[in-house]
Amino acid sequence: MSGEEAPTQQQQPEQEKTPDEPPPSAAAAAAEAPQGDSGSGAAAEEKPLTCRALVLIGHGGYDKVKLQVKTQGKPQPKAGEVLVRVKACGLNFAELLGRQGLYELLPAPPVTMGMEGSGVIEAVGEDVKDRKVGDRVIALSRSGMWQELVVVPAERTFVMPDEMSFEEGAALPVNYMTAYMMLFELANLRPGKSVLIHMAAGGVGIAATQLCQTVQDVTVFGTASASKHETIAQGGVTHPIDYRTKDYVEEIRKISPKGVDIVLDPLGGSDTQKGFSLLKPMGMLIVFGAANCVTGQKKNLLAMAKTWYNQLSLNTLKLMQANKAVCGFHLGYVTDEQLFSRTMMKLLELYRQGKIKPHIDSRYHFEEVTDAMKRMHERQNIGKVILLPEPKKEEEKPKSNAEAGENAEKNEAAVSEKKEEATEEVKAEKD
Amino acid sequence: MSGEEAPTQQQQPEQEKTPDEPPPSAAAAAAEAPQGDSGSGAAAEEKPLTCRALVLIGHGGYDKVKLQVKTQGKPQPKAGEVLVRVKACGLNFAELLGRQGLYELLPAPPVTMGMEGSGVIEAVGEDVKDRKVGDRVIALSRSGMWQELVVVPAERTFVMPDEMSFEEGAALPVNYMTAYMMLFELANLRPGKSVLIHMAAGGVGIAATQLCQTVQDVTVFGTASASKHETIAQGGVTHPIDYRTKDYVEEIRKISPKGVDIVLDPLGGSDTQKGFSLLKPMGMLIVFGAANCVTGQKKNLLAMAKTWYNQLSLNTLKLMQANKAVCGFHLGYVTDEQLFSRTMMKLLELYRQGKIKPHIDSRYHFEEVTDAMKRMHERQNIGKVILLPEPKKEEEKPKSNAEAGENAEKNEAAVSEKKEEATEEVKAEKD
Repeated sequence: MSGEEAPTQQQQPEQEKTPDEPPPSAAAAAAEAPQGDSGSGAAAEEKPLTCRALVLIGHGGYDKVKLQVKTQGKPQPKAGEVLVRVKACGLNFAELLGRQGLYELLPAPPVTMGMEGSGVIEAVGEDVKDRKVGDRVIALSRSGMWQELVVVPAERTFVMPDEMSFEEGAALPVNYMTAYMMLFELANLRPGKSVLIHMAAGGVGIAATQLCQTVQDVTVFGTASASKHETIAQGGVTHPIDYRTKDYVEEIRKISPKGVDIVLDPLGGSDTQKGFSLLKPMGMLIVFGAANCVTGQKKNLLAMAKTWYNQLSLNTLKLMQANKAVCGFHLGYVTDEQLFSRTMMKLLELYRQGKIKPHIDSRYHFEEVTDAMKRMHERQNIGKVILLPEPKKEEEKPKSNAEAGENAEKNEAAVSEKKEEATEEVKAEKD
Repeated sequence: MSGEEAPTQQQQPEQEKTPDEPPPSAAAAAAEAPQGDSGSGAAAEEKPLTCRALVLIGHGGYDKVKLQVKTQGKPQPKAGEVLVRVKACGLNFAELLGRQGLYELLPAPPVTMGMEGSGVIEAVGEDVKDRKVGDRVIALSRSGMWQELVVVPAERTFVMPDEMSFEEGAALPVNYMTAYMMLFELANLRPGKSVLIHMAAGGVGIAATQLCQTVQDVTVFGTASASKHETIAQGGVTHPIDYRTKDYVEEIRKISPKGVDIVLDPLGGSDTQKGFSLLKPMGMLIVFGAANCVTGQKKNLLAMAKTWYNQLSLNTLKLMQANKAVCGFHLGYVTDEQLFSRTMMKLLELYRQGKIKPHIDSRYHFEEVTDAMKRMHERQNIGKVILLPEPKKEEEKPKSNAEAGENAEKNEAAVSEKKEEATEEVKAEKD
């Protein structure tokens, strides 16, 4: 139980590792860190300090995401990298998929999760000229953002406007970049067009709705459960539709018999077919998720098979006769750094202009990650679910915008803080 | 052989017919009209006049398109319609498909062919306020444009700029609307993007190349046989590629290892798969034809099967992982009249600004339609092939921009002028 190499590797985002490089020797000792003790580690770079991290220890239910407190030397950014002390992280649907083993871009467990966060730069590597210690930044990474200290390439950090909170910073990148690239890079959203946004109260849904408002005279159809309609209507959804009690295809046809110009589809399966049928000629369907695959806590083979079976398969002849476009979008597969940077710059500009503003649904400390995942999984959230690395204080109330009642069961499945687990233990849990 | 109803119906474009209406009785008599005699019919509306028309009498080879000279009363436009004396017509690849029985939007034979033309308005129906007798117009119709006199809805005519010739007017609509809608409605062509244009010397190819020049800094890869490279390079193709002697995928990868942003694919089959593989992430493939289906003069089941078998079939999961968009486009299935009008207005404006100009490859009189089809079928054309309703004068030389040698065999399969054929005769030819 002395830690050694494997647990240390967990804390490092995959893209930071140089294949031939041995793990940092300073991180060898593992120890349980009492809450409130984290300040002591900041004294000197070579002295051990603690780092709280959410680690996926195997594929499965909520309990596979563990809070681990590692003791290590202070990570040293290499050339072109920066060290960020993370203040807030975003939770994404991809992480629910990743936990179930359905997200192939997430490295195999054990792995520290998290694709986005915000924080303060604590150190910069050689050659980093446009970032400095103390900069408040948004940071992106394929994994590893759900921890207190993370080393990332400087080009994957973006300086936040002064008026932006850390929570807003953590809520922005994945949802807004996804929505922006879909609406303006793939689709060609122009004045007078109509857009169907599924899960309109979710992170991407709210981002897409706000971005639709930046174009004149766009009609937004948004599906969400009835309790969220007021919020999404205020946010800009022209026609909220309760998908739980009504057939959204019929509802849309009543309002717009010819259908819609753009469908954003995070659901997959039969909903993709419905979306395709709803497209106007010259319209575009963008599939960017398969939320229908995710039913229970664990991988559901039946739901997956059904989603797969019902997914839209097309040949080009069919597309020609329909004059329709079908796209897939997945931010994780976007490798064009210029596109990333350009999009983030555009989004930060829109934020400064007051045209977009992330809607924070709720905040959960790392030890409450189960509740956070549950909230998103059960689609209770309106907007972004935020994770906070900072330990929860004993007296603290649930930091949620939602009604307190919804969080009554909040602590029942609280994740236990654990000492780092040896590799063997982790492996055992995977089966 | 007295003509009667069926042959008269052939001369009427399908959309003009009111289902319950009997054919005009004035058109009952059929007679052979000697060349040069057409002026005599214009005397009085009720007197018979002659009308030369290219009629598809059955599916098959070049000989299925017959020049017929009908004698009829002057067609009367109904409310909302205009009568156009056609001066020039466009030949499209869709007509080659239609002749082979591969274009389902063309009504069953016998049918007068032709989707686009230009001419002068000779009469206007009731309620037509924005067109007048004498207007020089472009006219569009699902079929029936390849005849001297045609009745079309006024809204399917567009007044030509004074400086536009009838040939340019006939060359513009199908090719330029196709190219425009693909590049700017489906795709989102913006500065700095790259486009692969197959058959870059064809009508759509030249139109697309010119339209790409209206956006800053667009790189155009264009495939064409080597003899056409100089012309297409002058027209704006950045990288002409000889698809007959080189692998265009390799050639493009050499110049742009990451591929291209937009692929315009009129070929179908395995070329669609190659196009998809060449797309950059966030790129779009637009399939708008299946030229690979057309090999010989007649329907080739093997070529069709091969094209069908090799066509790109996709599921949405594959699209997501690739971040790519696939569209089909077919102008014939565009039913949005506003989109039609808006696009034509935009194109006429671009013409006035000198930014686009149809490239006329060659002109053929109706009696030379076989040569015209052959020229396009064998991909000898650079730009648009035009058909002229006006009879060919005996002394007239071939009206082609191309070298005379290419047209040496021009008259060997000249279409015979024929008296109208009785329905029975036409049916016999279909088998």
